[in-house]
Amino acid sequence: MSKGDQTRQLIVSEAAALFNKHGFAGSTMAELMEATGLEKGGIYRHFSSKEEVAAEAFDYAWQIATDLRMHDVDSVPNSVDRLKRFISNFVERRSPVPGGCPLLNTAVEADDGSPVMRERARTALRQWRSRLGAITASGMKEGEIRKGTSPKKLSTLIVSSLEGALMISRLERSDEALRAVQTHLNQYLETEVRSAKSLPTRR
Amino acid sequence: MSKGDQTRQLIVSEAAALFNKHGFAGSTMAELMEATGLEKGGIYRHFSSKEEVAAEAFDYAWQIATDLRMHDVDSVPNSVDRLKRFISNFVERRSPVPGGCPLLNTAVEADDGSPVMRERARTALRQWRSRLGAITASGMKEGEIRKGTSPKKLSTLIVSSLEGALMISRLERSDEALRAVQTHLNQYLETEVRSAKSLPTRR
Repeated sequence: MSKGDQTRQLIVSEAAALFNKHGFAGSTMAELMEATGLEKGGIYRHFSSKEEVAAEAFDYAWQIATDLRMHDVDSVPNSVDRLKRFISNFVERRSPVPGGCPLLNTAVEADDGSPVMRERARTALRQWRSRLGAITASGMKEGEIRKGTSPKKLSTLIVSSLEGALMISRLERSDEALRAVQTHLNQYLETEVRSAKSLPTRR
Repeated sequence: MSKGDQTRQLIVSEAAALFNKHGFAGSTMAELMEATGLEKGGIYRHFSSKEEVAAEAFDYAWQIATDLRMHDVDSVPNSVDRLKRFISNFVERRSPVPGGCPLLNTAVEADDGSPVMRERARTALRQWRSRLGAITASGMKEGEIRKGTSPKKLSTLIVSSLEGALMISRLERSDEALRAVQTHLNQYLETEVRSAKSLPTRR
């Protein structure tokens, strides 16, 4: 990696921590200068605006969050268990980028704000739901998930309840809400989503 | 109402719209001056800081949101149906204060930010869950809700999934996610929460 690339990488990773904790409006270029040890010119050599840094910082934070949530998911044989692994990763694995879920933070700030950041959040959400939707669709094909299950509605339910519970858990500084939602989703997956013929006891 | 009280009320209602849309960090006193038509001194005669305005604006926006969500809830005879009415109010009734749910907005911004605003959000969440918890507890007492239901876990589930769905619906500018979560919650309330003996068909 060239020295220029290293500097760019440093800016992105420091910006990810800053923007994810304090938001786009709540973070200043002065704070980013302090965090990176760079002068203003050193940052603007790599990025044309604060928004450009924030957009790239979002992608960086989102990639890390996605990797953590998908950790080992593909190695789980049954699709319902893959969804459950995804949920437990979300509940248990914390990103090294502080500040909570980049999607939740950016969506809430940008829904009435920056179109660039809002588009970033929309893309991240689409990507996330399509991953969960693909697991569901493959489970239906394999006969592990009941026919008639809607991949879109199921992924919406999982994403909504986890993100809402994360908001509560971060506000209360307790994982109780996340655990309560995990229990609910797991129970729902077992009783309403898993196909009867894929239950080991009924084979 | 005295002229001073009217001015104070004007500041609070304009601040509620501004802060709820753009956040605490994303709103400036200059914008509030423009929205109210007041000079800086006219605002600081009533409030000592931006944070004091924001805190009172939050309470104002939260009161309106709570009134909308509780609309007609108390007039519904059965406790499970009261919870369902609450959910449909959340999905269908939009506050005149723009920007979405004040709790979600403030919680996400303040979890790593202003302790004053964070405390405001915590109190709002506690109040909200205790309302839903009280409906659940009264339903158990009346035999309408199954024994063994946890008022706290049920209210956590309702709040989490509605707030997460609202995030998605606002990002996508479509009520699809809210509708999907409403359908799920209603089905869960009917099949897992409503006591068998309170079902009209089984009486």
